[in-house]
Amino acid sequence: MTPSTGIAPVAFSRSFADPEGSPIRELFRHLAQPAMISFAGGYPSPALLDAEGLEQACAQCWGDAAASLQYGPTEGNADLRESLAGLSRGRGVACDARDVLVTTGSQQAFDILVRIFIEPGDAVVVEAPAYPAALQALRLAGASILQVPVDEHGMQVDMLREMLAVRGTQGRPKLLYTVPNYSNPSGTLLSAERRTALVALAIEHGFLIIEDDPYGQLYFDEPPGDSLHAVGRTCAGASNPVIYLSSLSKTVAPSLRIGWMVAPDRVLRRSVVAKQTMDLCTSPLAQRIAATYLALDRYEAAVLRSRATYGARMQAMTLHIDNHLHGQLTYLRPLGGMFIWARTVAPVDPDRLFHACVKAGVLFVPGKAFFAAQPDRHAMRLSYAAPDIHDIGEGVNRLAGVFRQLQEQPT
Amino acid sequence: MTPSTGIAPVAFSRSFADPEGSPIRELFRHLAQPAMISFAGGYPSPALLDAEGLEQACAQCWGDAAASLQYGPTEGNADLRESLAGLSRGRGVACDARDVLVTTGSQQAFDILVRIFIEPGDAVVVEAPAYPAALQALRLAGASILQVPVDEHGMQVDMLREMLAVRGTQGRPKLLYTVPNYSNPSGTLLSAERRTALVALAIEHGFLIIEDDPYGQLYFDEPPGDSLHAVGRTCAGASNPVIYLSSLSKTVAPSLRIGWMVAPDRVLRRSVVAKQTMDLCTSPLAQRIAATYLALDRYEAAVLRSRATYGARMQAMTLHIDNHLHGQLTYLRPLGGMFIWARTVAPVDPDRLFHACVKAGVLFVPGKAFFAAQPDRHAMRLSYAAPDIHDIGEGVNRLAGVFRQLQEQPT
Repeated sequence: MTPSTGIAPVAFSRSFADPEGSPIRELFRHLAQPAMISFAGGYPSPALLDAEGLEQACAQCWGDAAASLQYGPTEGNADLRESLAGLSRGRGVACDARDVLVTTGSQQAFDILVRIFIEPGDAVVVEAPAYPAALQALRLAGASILQVPVDEHGMQVDMLREMLAVRGTQGRPKLLYTVPNYSNPSGTLLSAERRTALVALAIEHGFLIIEDDPYGQLYFDEPPGDSLHAVGRTCAGASNPVIYLSSLSKTVAPSLRIGWMVAPDRVLRRSVVAKQTMDLCTSPLAQRIAATYLALDRYEAAVLRSRATYGARMQAMTLHIDNHLHGQLTYLRPLGGMFIWARTVAPVDPDRLFHACVKAGVLFVPGKAFFAAQPDRHAMRLSYAAPDIHDIGEGVNRLAGVFRQLQEQPT
Repeated sequence: MTPSTGIAPVAFSRSFADPEGSPIRELFRHLAQPAMISFAGGYPSPALLDAEGLEQACAQCWGDAAASLQYGPTEGNADLRESLAGLSRGRGVACDARDVLVTTGSQQAFDILVRIFIEPGDAVVVEAPAYPAALQALRLAGASILQVPVDEHGMQVDMLREMLAVRGTQGRPKLLYTVPNYSNPSGTLLSAERRTALVALAIEHGFLIIEDDPYGQLYFDEPPGDSLHAVGRTCAGASNPVIYLSSLSKTVAPSLRIGWMVAPDRVLRRSVVAKQTMDLCTSPLAQRIAATYLALDRYEAAVLRSRATYGARMQAMTLHIDNHLHGQLTYLRPLGGMFIWARTVAPVDPDRLFHACVKAGVLFVPGKAFFAAQPDRHAMRLSYAAPDIHDIGEGVNRLAGVFRQLQEQPT
């Protein structure tokens, strides 16, 4: 046997030579700390997931066991595609089952779109701050990532317009990725005016909008208004520039890993080819459970419970921040979803703040995780979705305690 | 609203400008034909899947519903990683749970490895014929695919040695993909001598071997012998050049979409980063069902039943071919797995043969699907896994009828 001496190890591809892991996952180890209160999660409250309904759906799948055990079509289970098309139409996304591709979570849908559209160097617009796993997929694909800042009404479309004008035809982006409804992490809702303006820009400059909508059903008072997909459809003389993504992870259960894409045929066909090489098909058992669950007529009630609970938790968190961190933190008050995006008013060293908070038993996600470049290091994402009202109060108290302590002991 | 006139549609990436779909999926429409007997499948017999055991496992998952409903670690469920490490060790693959990455089917494991290693133009060796979804993943990644022909003892390692000598250091492949045990589609078992020689070549030329092993447990008489991973481990002075992949799809249920990878830490860490952007994690519910099922102690019995049944079906198919297609078809007699690789002896037009068979009510996969280049158009893949003994006999009779008919009506 020839020893390997002298032969260099097989090189990784450029993107994977030295890739960074998820900055959020690195926080997981702190969760093991006793009595830690976490505002760092990006997951639904386990108590709000309809375990009883899912157990019931699951039990019904064994009547025709063979259909639950075999491979399935890459496009997805026919019943589930019907149901997801129905859910989409309920949100103003005109489609039927054949326009729907079932994916292994909506992250896979995004990854598929990156694969079928993006070559290294292609430009993609994101909001800043943006969802880290989307940024990571773009980074690994070698995309040139263009950030457009968010304010209380979502992505600042005027700034995008200026950016596009400056870049000209050569610098034209292929895709724009946005979470218009209660974005992760900013919690913002894109205003109706900006939706119209954004779609007009997409048509004018010839890019596609990927509208990722995992949180739109989790509104507190009013529904989020017309989807970008609905706006795109009404633009006379142009084909709809919007691809719609959504997920059952925030309203049914993350563990099913069921997301979906609504896209025109030419995109969907290629997405199916990509998905064949990625995982052949999304778990047909999980799809069957999801389809059966959605047919049980429990989904709406479960979503209602989530809206009420997340609304109450958001109220609790903002009330406590107003009471105990007045003048220390500014934040955007969300109208739905799971997240509050906050900034320290005084220039506190973000690393010092984070470590003091961990020590005090309260966890959040530091802002830098949500940017492709020029991170806002004084920002933080606070999720009120998983902790209960008591823990939300106690967690904010701990935060407030850390702020007091840092003021008393300035470096 | 500006109309889209004058703006070109967003271009797809080069690989997706005009991608071919799966040649096997195109056969699906023929399955709807009444009384069609299909030898075209690549899936286990539904009757052999342990529906009762899986239902039982599934019912047990609701005791701790929250753990079945939430997101899970990208690496996989801890219990399942333990079980899969145990299964791997039982096949001579030295590992423990931390060396295992759970994937959404073993196709995802392969796709991950392509992503972390392959840049356009990088060379990858495959056997010819090879598994079409692997070829497709390589094609879409822009790999330069090098084919090494298979004979009755699997990949012809001597021919690989010659190819490597001719190509020299510049043309050195990064990866070699092989299904050493009862390959899809050739059904061949790589001989022990060739395993040793193949691992030695990998060490000498500095490439990695991806050993994909979905069928190794489905042997008819004797187990397949040492895995390439085991051979690679015993090579003194070299780190193991073998990455081991396997799947529960052929022995438990395809619908779980559970596969796994055993790889060194530097590969596994990057695979986790890749998987985060692909689907965050494999369905934690499916993983929990799989882990619970494997703990029920029914897996071995289910595999025994599959071995016996597939063995009997292979016997039936080869007997019928010998009796009714003697002199018309040559084939490799498999020692396990699901596939017979056959060739027409007389030069029959393959398209004419295929369409006549469809008309006669028997389906197979034409050989051309299994090659990156220079397809053997006179070959065909016949699977005996799904049809029962009666249908196997009737299907071979139909094939024989078509051969008679084509001889009577030469073009």
